[in-house]
Amino acid sequence: MKSRQIPYKIYLSEEEMPRYWYNVKAHMKIQHEPFLNPETGKPCTKADLQPVFCDECIDQELNTTDERIEIPEGIRSFYRTFRPSPVVRAYFLEEQLGTCAEIYYKFEGSNTSGSHKLNSAAAQAYYAKKQGLKSLTTETGAGQWGTALAMASAFYGLNLDVYMVKVSSEQKPYRKEVIRTYGANVIPSPSDTTAAGRKILEEFPGTGGSLGCAISEAVEKATTTPSCRYVLGSVLDHVLLHQTVIGLESKTALDKYGITPDVIIGCCGGGSNFGGLIAPYMGDRLQGKNDIEFIGVEPASCPSLTRGKYAYDFCDSAKTTPLAKMYTLGCGFMPSANHAGGLRYHGMSPIISRLYHDGYIKALSVEQSKVFDAAVSFAKCEGILPAPESAHAIRVAIDEALKCKQTGEKKKILFGLTGTGYFDLAAYKKYNDGEMSDYIPTDKDLAKGFATIPEIKA
Amino acid sequence: MKSRQIPYKIYLSEEEMPRYWYNVKAHMKIQHEPFLNPETGKPCTKADLQPVFCDECIDQELNTTDERIEIPEGIRSFYRTFRPSPVVRAYFLEEQLGTCAEIYYKFEGSNTSGSHKLNSAAAQAYYAKKQGLKSLTTETGAGQWGTALAMASAFYGLNLDVYMVKVSSEQKPYRKEVIRTYGANVIPSPSDTTAAGRKILEEFPGTGGSLGCAISEAVEKATTTPSCRYVLGSVLDHVLLHQTVIGLESKTALDKYGITPDVIIGCCGGGSNFGGLIAPYMGDRLQGKNDIEFIGVEPASCPSLTRGKYAYDFCDSAKTTPLAKMYTLGCGFMPSANHAGGLRYHGMSPIISRLYHDGYIKALSVEQSKVFDAAVSFAKCEGILPAPESAHAIRVAIDEALKCKQTGEKKKILFGLTGTGYFDLAAYKKYNDGEMSDYIPTDKDLAKGFATIPEIKA
Repeated sequence: MKSRQIPYKIYLSEEEMPRYWYNVKAHMKIQHEPFLNPETGKPCTKADLQPVFCDECIDQELNTTDERIEIPEGIRSFYRTFRPSPVVRAYFLEEQLGTCAEIYYKFEGSNTSGSHKLNSAAAQAYYAKKQGLKSLTTETGAGQWGTALAMASAFYGLNLDVYMVKVSSEQKPYRKEVIRTYGANVIPSPSDTTAAGRKILEEFPGTGGSLGCAISEAVEKATTTPSCRYVLGSVLDHVLLHQTVIGLESKTALDKYGITPDVIIGCCGGGSNFGGLIAPYMGDRLQGKNDIEFIGVEPASCPSLTRGKYAYDFCDSAKTTPLAKMYTLGCGFMPSANHAGGLRYHGMSPIISRLYHDGYIKALSVEQSKVFDAAVSFAKCEGILPAPESAHAIRVAIDEALKCKQTGEKKKILFGLTGTGYFDLAAYKKYNDGEMSDYIPTDKDLAKGFATIPEIKA
Repeated sequence: MKSRQIPYKIYLSEEEMPRYWYNVKAHMKIQHEPFLNPETGKPCTKADLQPVFCDECIDQELNTTDERIEIPEGIRSFYRTFRPSPVVRAYFLEEQLGTCAEIYYKFEGSNTSGSHKLNSAAAQAYYAKKQGLKSLTTETGAGQWGTALAMASAFYGLNLDVYMVKVSSEQKPYRKEVIRTYGANVIPSPSDTTAAGRKILEEFPGTGGSLGCAISEAVEKATTTPSCRYVLGSVLDHVLLHQTVIGLESKTALDKYGITPDVIIGCCGGGSNFGGLIAPYMGDRLQGKNDIEFIGVEPASCPSLTRGKYAYDFCDSAKTTPLAKMYTLGCGFMPSANHAGGLRYHGMSPIISRLYHDGYIKALSVEQSKVFDAAVSFAKCEGILPAPESAHAIRVAIDEALKCKQTGEKKKILFGLTGTGYFDLAAYKKYNDGEMSDYIPTDKDLAKGFATIPEIKA
């Protein structure tokens, strides 16, 4: 065992918890292109977005100037029920690998939703309540986001309708039950509660639904219900902003011990957790204050950064949202059915896309069997059963640490452990039974997705 | 919101973590009666127990003199991966209840096993490794204990066979998968791997198994396999000893703020978590240093303290273990099928039984629908989805706080939140669907159980 000057876990006191989110856009010399209204082709205004999102979230979405955006006491108060989260020194993983690298991870899974999603759910529910709204809607696939928003809605006293992809609500009945326990209404989608749902049901009787359809239903329900708004769990700038508590806490904790990471690694689905983890470090980097390597990790089966196009595209597969300029596989792209866990989004946060495009971020894609190898060896020595999503970052952190073992470099590696795998055990079963396979889309597969990217006249 | 001088969560630093377990027996004027060998009727010696348990655990089991028993660095090292656990001030619950009482809880659910069970699993696996053993066996019903021991066995590099009640392994396939992911072998019981299992299978083909049968198989496997021992997750003195980290951490945390609880509440199944929570406070009480009220809470459907007999009985329903003097419903007692979650043990820790018999502990029984009411209102304001077991303590803590609201007493209430409800969602579903019923055994039901208590000549 190495010496223990740095504790196994670094916790912050309540006084040390962030009072501001970190708006990395304040330091970006080139901002990402604005959202476009798909009907007019013109940039979305606040008024365009108001029927869908809370006012405060829209202001945050459009803010490119203020580095610090205050976290209201009403949100910090709820944050105290599940934050601060620890930065853990992975002593046992280091020992198992025999590496000279130092590995740290920020663990966001110690709450009932099981992931970092609660950071933004808390903020968005708070702002809805403050605006005098009565209810929220959202969609959920695997259910982590739906759970997080149900917890936040219960805390702030808001009604919530969660449109859950029908096949998920049937395959993950217990996830559905957590959401119901927090008082939210779970509606298997497609449903007969919206015109969009009824249309799909008429065209495809007996369909198991899709995330695209669930989004359409949730948005329709929000825009047709008084005092109701829609809430999204990733991709958008304000969601990434709320997730910067991850990076801010990490930085405060590591700064106490004089540690600046050489590499920061996060898994990338919509990009909000990775963006939140790196934000304050990236802000420093953009100001020439560090030279950290930032690595976003995505599944080989859904490789939006590494193999996607940088283009305007819809945020949903039902083509109902504004257009965002981002790395995308095409809003019609569907990851293979053998793909486990989340990270199955066709696009990527516009902020992450811009930073990647400008060379500040490196992206890697990994195959899922290697991801699960990493997950299981991590679980056995560090105790925590990771979410498959998080295990993408573990995979690359282990690979980096093994490189250090070869070269003798004593790199300091920080990665984001976004959640636990308690609700992904069907995937672990596949792995344990030796039945997990990998899938890498062919260029032809990708071409089909690219064909669904809309033509936009600049 | 009340003022926040006491933080929402009190964490200890690694230096403040306990270096010793607390052996409450050192302060008990009357010790519990010794285990008896059922064949001879004489007290069990170390030699009687050695084929089944690790040597070090037996020494701890029989130690009635040393208040402090050192936690070896090899265990403290593993403890650091999931400890210290926080003492939480339940500000939001207090606010919701409008009580003038202060409510605190010690949360043991922030690890992959989801409960306090890992505290003893870690210790027992470490001692097995230290003794040069190669493998362990145990039984598991709902699976929390099996998961905890699988995690500890993976950490220390031991093989593990978990005999899982067949019907549970079928109804909780995901629990089984967590255990497998940590590398343990899950054997649905009854199985053909032991003589005990084969006998049951022959007599009752197609049976779903029972905990009693699983214990018999696990003990047989341990005693017939070289370098193998059996491990138990509750009831025994050494298990309770390992659980005293809960009470020691709680006391260190609360002492920092000058807080001594007026009431300490814990749920009681086998009694090890409750015993571990109260141990250091009880030690002080036995020395006349405090006047704390200790309340053990059990299900109305399995009321060993409140309606059981104080008698020598077998620890398992298969009648293979030594006899323990304890409060018992009879080793043949089976709680009603509608009973959710754990706390379904027929007996009670001999230490807890003795302290209860001598008037140091109060016991209450509660009905499960009221337990789930408490669980859900706790989840909505404090965020954590509690295990049904833990919610027994929540129920009584809420009732105590509501009494304070009536009387104006500003009692300080501490309760043990032993785990999360992630793997108990079938029970939550029943509750959410309004299909949960209560069951209180009649005196006639109890008489049937009492009839299975063996006759012992004193």
